[in-house]
Amino acid sequence: MLKFQFIKFSPLFPSKPSFFPLSSRLKSHMASYSSSSSNLLFRQLFEKESSTYTYLLADASHADKPALLIDPVDRTVDRDLSLIQELGLKLVYALNTHVHADHVTGTGLIKSKVPDVKSVISKASGATADVYVQQGDKIRFGDLYLEVRATPGHTLGCLTYVTGDGPDQPQPRRAFTGDTLLIRGCGRTDFQGGSSENLYKSVHSQIFTLPKDTLLYPAHDYKGFSVTTVGEEMQYNPRLTKDEETFKNIMANLNLSYPKMIDVAVPANMVCGIQSKTS
Amino acid sequence: MLKFQFIKFSPLFPSKPSFFPLSSRLKSHMASYSSSSSNLLFRQLFEKESSTYTYLLADASHADKPALLIDPVDRTVDRDLSLIQELGLKLVYALNTHVHADHVTGTGLIKSKVPDVKSVISKASGATADVYVQQGDKIRFGDLYLEVRATPGHTLGCLTYVTGDGPDQPQPRRAFTGDTLLIRGCGRTDFQGGSSENLYKSVHSQIFTLPKDTLLYPAHDYKGFSVTTVGEEMQYNPRLTKDEETFKNIMANLNLSYPKMIDVAVPANMVCGIQSKTS
Repeated sequence: MLKFQFIKFSPLFPSKPSFFPLSSRLKSHMASYSSSSSNLLFRQLFEKESSTYTYLLADASHADKPALLIDPVDRTVDRDLSLIQELGLKLVYALNTHVHADHVTGTGLIKSKVPDVKSVISKASGATADVYVQQGDKIRFGDLYLEVRATPGHTLGCLTYVTGDGPDQPQPRRAFTGDTLLIRGCGRTDFQGGSSENLYKSVHSQIFTLPKDTLLYPAHDYKGFSVTTVGEEMQYNPRLTKDEETFKNIMANLNLSYPKMIDVAVPANMVCGIQSKTS
Repeated sequence: MLKFQFIKFSPLFPSKPSFFPLSSRLKSHMASYSSSSSNLLFRQLFEKESSTYTYLLADASHADKPALLIDPVDRTVDRDLSLIQELGLKLVYALNTHVHADHVTGTGLIKSKVPDVKSVISKASGATADVYVQQGDKIRFGDLYLEVRATPGHTLGCLTYVTGDGPDQPQPRRAFTGDTLLIRGCGRTDFQGGSSENLYKSVHSQIFTLPKDTLLYPAHDYKGFSVTTVGEEMQYNPRLTKDEETFKNIMANLNLSYPKMIDVAVPANMVCGIQSKTS
């Protein structure tokens, strides 16, 4: 089994980080010229109790088939790891878009079962993880990468992960928006450093500036939708199509009940899930 | 609004049916040379109570954006029609893979709200519909089409709809398997003319003969999976990888409880949903 070397990400990362030994890196570099959108193996997975989507992404054309999970849930870790094994993938990263308040992340449990996996979250979240990322960082898996965009508002540390830009990256682009943008909605802004002003600015500066055909995959959906696009949300999102003052007024008057899982989930998620004592 | 001319499908349909007036047909014919997989607008929609997937497909490159729904559910018709309207699509067909026993189809309700829509089901189902299809038929929407495959076993009238074959059709192909093949499972075979022998033969002759990268979309999933492939199921389906005798033995000993919705759903679905008196 390969050991992955940990490399600090920087906002202007000049070259591919050394996840693989030199021979693999050379091969990977050579392969990058022939890669195409079909390289991306993509699975959307649903956890019914919290209506959470977990996303599995892998570079299926790379010899090592490196993979990552976005927003895994503790209850569905065995399902996800079993699928990864069946597909012959090598799980490298378990990412969170933010510190969730409605379910316990699967990150800690995954790390206890697959020790090489690195947990990833934003610096601004204040949570414990192996890798802290921020605006402009790139998270590479094989010849593919995710670009990190800071999208605070639902929480202070919310991130949106966007597939890479360029002819060797998947087209159309895909953005994993967490609770920042939901399909025809958005996350609440009244807990965990939430701010309706920040959320509005985040969506308009970091998500609505992506190409209109960008596929948007949220952390949750409660109506059975699975995906939307930038173009659709710019036209039909009932909250975010409003001007900023109207939006802030809407968010200030949602009258939502206290999140029933928050007192369990947030402390656990600050350490990547209750199953892990260290991260 | 265009009026669609009804054309009887035949197994060896020689040319594109005349859904559109002549000018549209000419344009459509010309456009077919430049069409590609990106023509397909695709949405997977979930109904949580019965864990049913409804699929929306449309030819987004065609001027009329003709669309069809596979296995709509009565409870989510308004959601589906609202999405279709927002996306600027023209719903042409509402298809069922079979007479469902666990939920009421949305077909009747859709027809009452959008009268031009034609309901589609198999001849062998015995149910009422506008269009009856059978093995080898093609259901065309714009420059795209679905191929009909008879896959009896869960019920006598089960169909699998497969996207077209050829350079101008989506790649990889996508098959909508209803309850014939579920992800790492299959539908029960103890009601509605069900037969484990038929189901086994259907899967092995009509689904496992498709290219291995064919994406398989079932009518249900109870574990949060959204898609699988022919290659995956040929390798990992715990029932259908067995020999036929072992499979029949597994199916004969499932000891499942009586389907709780069957006495309501089946009579309703035989007439395309309780909301429609005629079809």
